[in-house]
Amino acid sequence: MKSTRAYAHTNIALIKYWGKLPGHLNLPATGSLSLTLENFGTQTTLSFIEAAQDIFVLNNQEQTGEPLLRVQRFLDIVRALGKSDRRCLVDSRNDVPTSSGLASSASGFAALSLAANQHYALNLNPVDLSQLARVGSGSAARSIFGGFVYMHPGTPVDKTGGYAEALATDPALDIRLIVVQCANTCKEISSRAGMLHTSNTSPYYPTWLATHAKDLEEATRAAMQGDFKTLGELTEHSTLKMHACMLAAKPGFWYFEPLTIAVMNKVKALRNDGVNCYFTMDAGPHVKVLCKAQHAEDIAKSFKKIKGIVRIDIAKPGPGAKLQ
Amino acid sequence: MKSTRAYAHTNIALIKYWGKLPGHLNLPATGSLSLTLENFGTQTTLSFIEAAQDIFVLNNQEQTGEPLLRVQRFLDIVRALGKSDRRCLVDSRNDVPTSSGLASSASGFAALSLAANQHYALNLNPVDLSQLARVGSGSAARSIFGGFVYMHPGTPVDKTGGYAEALATDPALDIRLIVVQCANTCKEISSRAGMLHTSNTSPYYPTWLATHAKDLEEATRAAMQGDFKTLGELTEHSTLKMHACMLAAKPGFWYFEPLTIAVMNKVKALRNDGVNCYFTMDAGPHVKVLCKAQHAEDIAKSFKKIKGIVRIDIAKPGPGAKLQ
Repeated sequence: MKSTRAYAHTNIALIKYWGKLPGHLNLPATGSLSLTLENFGTQTTLSFIEAAQDIFVLNNQEQTGEPLLRVQRFLDIVRALGKSDRRCLVDSRNDVPTSSGLASSASGFAALSLAANQHYALNLNPVDLSQLARVGSGSAARSIFGGFVYMHPGTPVDKTGGYAEALATDPALDIRLIVVQCANTCKEISSRAGMLHTSNTSPYYPTWLATHAKDLEEATRAAMQGDFKTLGELTEHSTLKMHACMLAAKPGFWYFEPLTIAVMNKVKALRNDGVNCYFTMDAGPHVKVLCKAQHAEDIAKSFKKIKGIVRIDIAKPGPGAKLQ
Repeated sequence: MKSTRAYAHTNIALIKYWGKLPGHLNLPATGSLSLTLENFGTQTTLSFIEAAQDIFVLNNQEQTGEPLLRVQRFLDIVRALGKSDRRCLVDSRNDVPTSSGLASSASGFAALSLAANQHYALNLNPVDLSQLARVGSGSAARSIFGGFVYMHPGTPVDKTGGYAEALATDPALDIRLIVVQCANTCKEISSRAGMLHTSNTSPYYPTWLATHAKDLEEATRAAMQGDFKTLGELTEHSTLKMHACMLAAKPGFWYFEPLTIAVMNKVKALRNDGVNCYFTMDAGPHVKVLCKAQHAEDIAKSFKKIKGIVRIDIAKPGPGAKLQ
């Protein structure tokens, strides 16, 4: 039985994506700038099956309900593109916790897109592949590529855009992202539901949209020029602005847990002591800390002193999605 | 030696005041709706002294630097109004922690205003007294009155407004405010500095201003009509919108500590279990929880289970400032 296997790494946005354009194409209302991480990812194997519908196995557990439907709807698009009606067994293994703000859906849909491109002989180029991945999960478009990735916002008029591309950055940046896991729990509110609620009810959402492009352009320029301080400051500003937008929703919501604040406070204290590092948080309680490679071990050690931290990983920039 | 003693209670804003109009009158850019609390306050005794400058003793400690200057500048205004040049010994005792977001400056300047009004024979009526108190500390204007207090924003054109008045509310509200002290530390950023930095740099500040009046009017109507749920929901929305505005400043800042989030999470969980209660936070880590009197003991007990909480008080609505 023919099968295709692909692996994609997670990525973490430094300049955040939060909010979608109206419609069913999952087009992001904002662009983003991300870093693909070496440490975590998803391996996905596709095999054709004779069955009425696709089967989705995640970490050896057969999925039902919304997770299954999401994969089936995605494969329906793949089948339309590939003029096929064949069903699949999708066998995925995450080495990141699922649904906890560690971007498992980014690596998941990137790996699935790359495997499906081959398995259904779609012959998509990387940019088109990133658009396909985006339909599955907005942040998955970025995991097609390695290192720093620039993601274009969707365009409201012609409903295009929403694709990613690799960004050539100054190698002198030599950065690490320290992933500090602050809880073991699954998030209560999915990114998708959180974005929708924010865009529907937060009075700050229009300003989030209106001020985003400038942050993205300045951070992208900083990354290309190797200006770590500017990149870090904008990274922190973008995540705080995003989470602020959620707090102001009606009703407000937050992904912060007590340890999230403890790590944020520690980052601020380290910076006051002259150690340049900057935090970013996604739709979950964990904190990811951007720093120079030479400081990573020391910074990680100082987080280890915070009681209750679940796990700390120092992540290097990682490569793009690959067939295996 | 003639002396005058006054006592004022603290107050906590449910609909928040954050941001000042330009100029030296300390005029608030937003109105506010507050509750004066029975449990905490400041006693201040004024005595004339033969000295080149005023002396300020707070909790038996002679003050210097900014705290002293703030009291001296305030008394200069009092002296101008009272056509006097006599200096004072200001002896204040707080039964709230100072500079920790528990509104010690509100009760402090309210007590000082009332005592000074008598001591310098200013004969101000309560509304004018609230304007005087406001020049010392924006939130002090509200502590002149008891129970629910409505504070008018300053008016940018003629530089008036910025006074408080008692609000007649539905007695059926029968509320309590549970004050949950989440840390022993002093805040790093004063309200005054935090407001200025927010108004100067936060992209969300214009929207905070533009959307505030509607929250204030709706919450005031809810309080007058005894609509606890609407009052509670707007209380939580206003504080989250205020803190969101700070997060989005450049650089962002926050008064949250880990236990702040733990208490916020607990309030959300209690509400999910059908117990109606709502949080509010000021320029400090503590959480104040609005609830009906009949639920206060049970809710307070559930906060006691959170490890590290410094102190929990159930506060009733309290009276206005009084001479003693």
